Amino acid sequence: MRQLALRLSYDGSAYHGWQRQKGLPTVQETLEEALTRLCKTETRALGCGRTDAGVHARKYCAGFRTECAVPADRLPLALNALLPPDIAVQAACEVEPDFHPVFSCRKKEYTYYVRSGVIRDPFERDRVWFRPGELDLARLRAGAEQFLGTHDFSAVRSVGTNVKTTVRTVYDFSVEQEGDLFSFRICASGFLYNMARAMVGTVLYVSLGKLRPEEIPEILDTGDRCLAGPTVPPQGLYMTGVWYDGEAGRMMQA
Amino acid sequence: MRQLALRLSYDGSAYHGWQRQKGLPTVQETLEEALTRLCKTETRALGCGRTDAGVHARKYCAGFRTECAVPADRLPLALNALLPPDIAVQAACEVEPDFHPVFSCRKKEYTYYVRSGVIRDPFERDRVWFRPGELDLARLRAGAEQFLGTHDFSAVRSVGTNVKTTVRTVYDFSVEQEGDLFSFRICASGFLYNMARAMVGTVLYVSLGKLRPEEIPEILDTGDRCLAGPTVPPQGLYMTGVWYDGEAGRMMQA
Repeated sequence: MRQLALRLSYDGSAYHGWQRQKGLPTVQETLEEALTRLCKTETRALGCGRTDAGVHARKYCAGFRTECAVPADRLPLALNALLPPDIAVQAACEVEPDFHPVFSCRKKEYTYYVRSGVIRDPFERDRVWFRPGELDLARLRAGAEQFLGTHDFSAVRSVGTNVKTTVRTVYDFSVEQEGDLFSFRICASGFLYNMARAMVGTVLYVSLGKLRPEEIPEILDTGDRCLAGPTVPPQGLYMTGVWYDGEAGRMMQA
Repeated sequence: MRQLALRLSYDGSAYHGWQRQKGLPTVQETLEEALTRLCKTETRALGCGRTDAGVHARKYCAGFRTECAVPADRLPLALNALLPPDIAVQAACEVEPDFHPVFSCRKKEYTYYVRSGVIRDPFERDRVWFRPGELDLARLRAGAEQFLGTHDFSAVRSVGTNVKTTVRTVYDFSVEQEGDLFSFRICASGFLYNMARAMVGTVLYVSLGKLRPEEIPEILDTGDRCLAGPTVPPQGLYMTGVWYDGEAGRMMQA
């Protein structure tokens, strides 16, 4: 049995996230249907993480096992011909038998986009969160750096999934501004449910003066979700990086 | 009666073009519904030109007459609250009583985007024409410059609209490349039906070696649509500029 990994990008607007849900369109089900047609036998795919309804991916890793003989370098075009236009396979490679999209993952990156300003851009609907009003880059950055390091992130997750531990390491949380477009890039060992969106909501609270940066470590210590900022809406969020060792790692970074 | 001009941008994916058509969603009808709700009386809008189904606008000018007293600088936010997220009013101003979005227009610009390369981008579906295969920038440019100047453009229009003359002046037709994304910017005194898309299709034929650049003036002389290249699909096309004298001109260029 071969095992393969795929690098995907998708516009999540039309999907109820990655993970299969009865009666709702999902990226996983859509990919599995394409794999099943290509491999001519029921084929299941594993993803590197759940993404929520409306969340996008510029780099997402999925794995699948197959007896099908199609060479890895022909998979992107063959699958793209079977996939809808809002999902694309960018690359594919053979991976080690013990590769697992979730458990082999070393770190992940999400990027969130907020458009401040007055007039919305029709081309950014479903792609960027339009939030009229001023934002303060220095305050956003002061808030962001409070999240760096290893913490229990219970205060910035939504309940609803079972995890063994709520401790994660945030390696980087950078905020950039280009005109009135703000981008928030978070790189971490892993993300709890809604963690990226609650972190962005919390640094926005710092920009608005509703929280002081030095309160963030205290909030993380309490583990109380009610003390942190709100979960920002899904359409601004993109999975933008997944890191592995070996072949999958080379493919994801190419 | 006041007369006002609006600068609009819209994602045309969901619309059957600008112009009202019975039973089909159009940008004109959608804008008129918002104007009618705001002004509390049936209000009609005039556009600066037809755009086809699926064609977009980053800068489009519409005009309307009203007795309504709302100040011009409050119109964008007031209308955007009533418009769907794929249409936005960017600016508004009072214009002279004899202003007409079509007849006062001095020149217009359309920009067309083609993605060459191998793998499609899900975020560019409906926004860029994905056309796998190599394109040659020098050949594209050699074809484009043949269109400059004043000509009868019958050979690159589709029939179906009545116009007094098929003579237009093309002031600029520039082609740029960024990686495998090609942009075609055409500035002209006016555009016949499908003229921009047929001009792009014709320079693509030059890149593919199906036409020589020096054949283009001969084709324009014949006026025979069958000799020029094909009409490229709508989703890559954007209205990107409209020029006027006076207040409307200042608003459109701001």
